[in-house]
Amino acid sequence: MALSKRPYKGTRDFFPELKRGQDFLFQKMSQTAHLFGYEPYDGPLLEEVDLYRAKSGEELINDQIYSFIDRGERHVAIRPEMTPTVARMVAQIHREVTRPIRWFTIANLMRYERPQKGRLREHWQFNCDIFGAPEGQGEVEILQVAIALLNNFGANEKHFEIRLNDRKIVDYTFNQLLKIDDEKALKLYKIVDRATKVSKEALDKMIDELGLSDEQRKIFSDYLSLNSFGDLMQFLAGSEVATYLPKFVDQMEELGYLPYLKYDPTIVRGLDYYTGMVFEIFDKHPENRRALCGGGAFADLLKIFDETPLAGVGLGLGDVTLMDFLKVHNLLPSFERPSNDLFVSFQTEEAKIPALKLAKELRSNNLNVITTLEPLKFKKIFPAAEKKGARFVAIFGDKELENNSVQFKNMQTKEQTELSLSDIDKIVEYLK
Amino acid sequence: MALSKRPYKGTRDFFPELKRGQDFLFQKMSQTAHLFGYEPYDGPLLEEVDLYRAKSGEELINDQIYSFIDRGERHVAIRPEMTPTVARMVAQIHREVTRPIRWFTIANLMRYERPQKGRLREHWQFNCDIFGAPEGQGEVEILQVAIALLNNFGANEKHFEIRLNDRKIVDYTFNQLLKIDDEKALKLYKIVDRATKVSKEALDKMIDELGLSDEQRKIFSDYLSLNSFGDLMQFLAGSEVATYLPKFVDQMEELGYLPYLKYDPTIVRGLDYYTGMVFEIFDKHPENRRALCGGGAFADLLKIFDETPLAGVGLGLGDVTLMDFLKVHNLLPSFERPSNDLFVSFQTEEAKIPALKLAKELRSNNLNVITTLEPLKFKKIFPAAEKKGARFVAIFGDKELENNSVQFKNMQTKEQTELSLSDIDKIVEYLK
Repeated sequence: MALSKRPYKGTRDFFPELKRGQDFLFQKMSQTAHLFGYEPYDGPLLEEVDLYRAKSGEELINDQIYSFIDRGERHVAIRPEMTPTVARMVAQIHREVTRPIRWFTIANLMRYERPQKGRLREHWQFNCDIFGAPEGQGEVEILQVAIALLNNFGANEKHFEIRLNDRKIVDYTFNQLLKIDDEKALKLYKIVDRATKVSKEALDKMIDELGLSDEQRKIFSDYLSLNSFGDLMQFLAGSEVATYLPKFVDQMEELGYLPYLKYDPTIVRGLDYYTGMVFEIFDKHPENRRALCGGGAFADLLKIFDETPLAGVGLGLGDVTLMDFLKVHNLLPSFERPSNDLFVSFQTEEAKIPALKLAKELRSNNLNVITTLEPLKFKKIFPAAEKKGARFVAIFGDKELENNSVQFKNMQTKEQTELSLSDIDKIVEYLK
Repeated sequence: MALSKRPYKGTRDFFPELKRGQDFLFQKMSQTAHLFGYEPYDGPLLEEVDLYRAKSGEELINDQIYSFIDRGERHVAIRPEMTPTVARMVAQIHREVTRPIRWFTIANLMRYERPQKGRLREHWQFNCDIFGAPEGQGEVEILQVAIALLNNFGANEKHFEIRLNDRKIVDYTFNQLLKIDDEKALKLYKIVDRATKVSKEALDKMIDELGLSDEQRKIFSDYLSLNSFGDLMQFLAGSEVATYLPKFVDQMEELGYLPYLKYDPTIVRGLDYYTGMVFEIFDKHPENRRALCGGGAFADLLKIFDETPLAGVGLGLGDVTLMDFLKVHNLLPSFERPSNDLFVSFQTEEAKIPALKLAKELRSNNLNVITTLEPLKFKKIFPAAEKKGARFVAIFGDKELENNSVQFKNMQTKEQTELSLSDIDKIVEYLK
């Protein structure tokens, strides 16, 4: 039986058009990180499962992780996310390096998902993290990086918004206002997380099951209705927890980022890392209401390695959701064709060596040159060159061979120019 | 118990210095591929094991592959190489696209190796393949790509050599000259492959076990002694198989690549793909006698998908052996420090917002700007900026704040220049 030609379920074959699109995303990610002085890192594809067990949710370990026992009896997993890896790596060096530590990566990750729009089993994720920044400043910078990245693709506050919250505010609401115990608080956290994803009825049912008093229900309902930083300040009414967020919002405003921000009481993110600010970036387009980026502040990621606490702030942004976002807003160029500087053709076997020699010389001058490898009929040259996105075509006919010259055609202007093969510099200049 | 901070056995933590080095390799690989008009592709991290079973060696499946049963009862493997994936992908599209198909990738791969110099469990590999090229021309181009890549790092024929052979020559020797059956031929293939890796005694012992006649031993010994293309031509003495290689060598000579080539009868590569030319690139440095690149021509990779034959030529080059090669020849720049255009510092809390605003404006002009996030004492500014590889430093002192200006220092010339914050264009020009 013939083998299947399909890729493994939930993964993608990146044919050149798709790969050029992905490279476009990666290039902007890397460029944006460098704009802020973030340094690149990467970690292994496999980590020991214990690393995820220590910090990620049980759901991840039980249902979503690709794990197996290796030939040396180690229980390992294909990395489903980069945060545990970056924490492990920072734990090795944080005592010796200058702070803040600013790192980024673009890594392939796998989760055992049911494939659906915006969610695949294999995806690539851009991660930026800052460790050891002064209080509140890492948060500002990480949000700036996220905004700058989307700005770099041509997106602005008309296209996306940053919904943010602070885990300290949620904790304050649960502990100080609702006065519920930890067990109930954990359940309520999950309810908050689900609040915008389920129907009003389902939400009410979940709350009913908790057995809150009327007063508690009223406070919780008020909390879920908060819709702006102004609302929030009233709700918190001068409590200590209300001092940090206004300072942060002020700084974002002074830097001109307020139009991007929206307070959202339902943003809590996963329960395992975050201890401070949390955020998710949403597409404003009605057809694509998925978060395309998320992140937040964590106080003690290094604890599992017995290291002293080191506060951090991070973001993660996946290639699948980003691509959906850019597509729906028409922010992508076409990746159908490659780009080449020159398409070198020849029409006779005798012209092959001179043609290939010219290609060699031009490549050593950093020109991207694609050649035919056998004589090509004249009428086939230009369609072939166009498919390869060539800016120029070189034609080696009999006459040119005799003259030791080559005929160039500019594919845009259609102008033709004959240049001598003995003056490579002139050819390079012409083609640049 | 605290978790281990070490990476999984045989894998690497890419801290920024190491990752900058790797990115340097990747950038040259991608640039070189584009010089020849190769288009990028990538495939999934996991493939079904059947794909490797169909074409790779049994050794790979039994001993070297990371395979497991997924939650849907599929037997899958982390990709140990890219050739089966590229074959699977090309099988999907080869009937619709113009030939030749020129593709490249830089992909992370895993093999269950015993970690040692030049060999790790996880590595990255640059793969270039050309499918459907006219006979002999794909071979020339793929070798050109390999040479151009190493040339791009500053390496030349003093640093490396390409040892090549042709599987057709080996087959001719075994079938026509030695006249041995397929079973013996297979054993002899393995002996040839091991010939330079074991002692003379061990080699003789392996040959003894085959029970060859004296005449056969003589011919085989003559074969193993071939040391040049001239030797080879004499040995083949006008047989049909001797017609192709001289043409290939002539073309390489005309293009100026002969100094890189060496005929080597012991190069046969793995037994599963290759059917024509095979090659390996060796470091000439005595301390690093490992192959750093290998490849060859294959006639029927698509057969396992029930597709019509499509000839191809490919190369694979790993990051670990390449890095060793470049290190031993001092062909690497330093990756210790990042590069940034500007380090923005401020000495008082009041200067923070103006400083961060300047950074924002300059980043939108594509300058890489790293900022302090809290007031920094004057004497700490320059050491910090130097560590971050900044070309310029911006200083916001009290006097500058009053003047709505900023003091710039060129870190190389040590010159200082005060510029007004109201003229961003002038600042951008100064920093470029």
